[in-house]
Amino acid sequence: MDYEFLIKDLNRNKSQKIIGTDKGLAKIGDAIVNLAYSVAKSNILTKNNQNNKPIRTGKKVGRTILEAALKKAELKNFAKNRANAHDFADTVEALVAYVWLANKISIKEIIELLTENLAGNLYDRQEEISSATIAFTELLSSIKKFLPEK
Amino acid sequence: MDYEFLIKDLNRNKSQKIIGTDKGLAKIGDAIVNLAYSVAKSNILTKNNQNNKPIRTGKKVGRTILEAALKKAELKNFAKNRANAHDFADTVEALVAYVWLANKISIKEIIELLTENLAGNLYDRQEEISSATIAFTELLSSIKKFLPEK
Repeated sequence: MDYEFLIKDLNRNKSQKIIGTDKGLAKIGDAIVNLAYSVAKSNILTKNNQNNKPIRTGKKVGRTILEAALKKAELKNFAKNRANAHDFADTVEALVAYVWLANKISIKEIIELLTENLAGNLYDRQEEISSATIAFTELLSSIKKFLPEK
Repeated sequence: MDYEFLIKDLNRNKSQKIIGTDKGLAKIGDAIVNLAYSVAKSNILTKNNQNNKPIRTGKKVGRTILEAALKKAELKNFAKNRANAHDFADTVEALVAYVWLANKISIKEIIELLTENLAGNLYDRQEEISSATIAFTELLSSIKKFLPEK
């Protein structure tokens, strides 16, 4: 099954703001982001676990992380004017959902990208925030080519 | 990338209760269930939309739906003893995460199964609940063969 029909209106008249401020896309992207980050974090915790036992965890990604990643990836033009942290986070989620629905990236590829860029002691909150910000910046930088230029 | 290493402890000593009550699995499964249901619901709303415009939506699946589906699929042995609605929902999510991490089903296949079995007017809350219950019962019935027999 192919879900491109779910974004055909967005593809007809491609615009950064229309894609980046779409509420439905943001909701779908929220679930993608949380799933991918949960598995990526589980991957790293398991790899770093001395006794080699799997550690499975779920984690909602905070707004601050997504907002910082959007800015570092130079994609804040996709957000609405006078956006707050919540709006910026929604924009990240909308962009991720857009490229996934457009079949440009798979969930496993998103997980891989995050896993490759996550490092450090994820049990330390500050370390986790800074590592997750880098990982999401990398993810956004690598999907940038699938997004409209204006 | 393959995530089977994340469940190798569960596969070493397979048991219905150990898999069905794993909190980490439930967290990962929560994101899978919400993503899959959001896309499936968007698919149906778009198909039924008179003017043919895509409708994208996100939706957390309620506990009652997941609890009812677990019981209808005759999988409640996977839940803990004296489970409440919350525990039953967690068990559904754990089972979905388990088969996904075991590479037995993909996210797109989960979406397809839910989409095929969703019907009716999903804007009506009661109709949505009864349709979603059927859809999740079908999903669980079709992954049952990948789960341990005791």
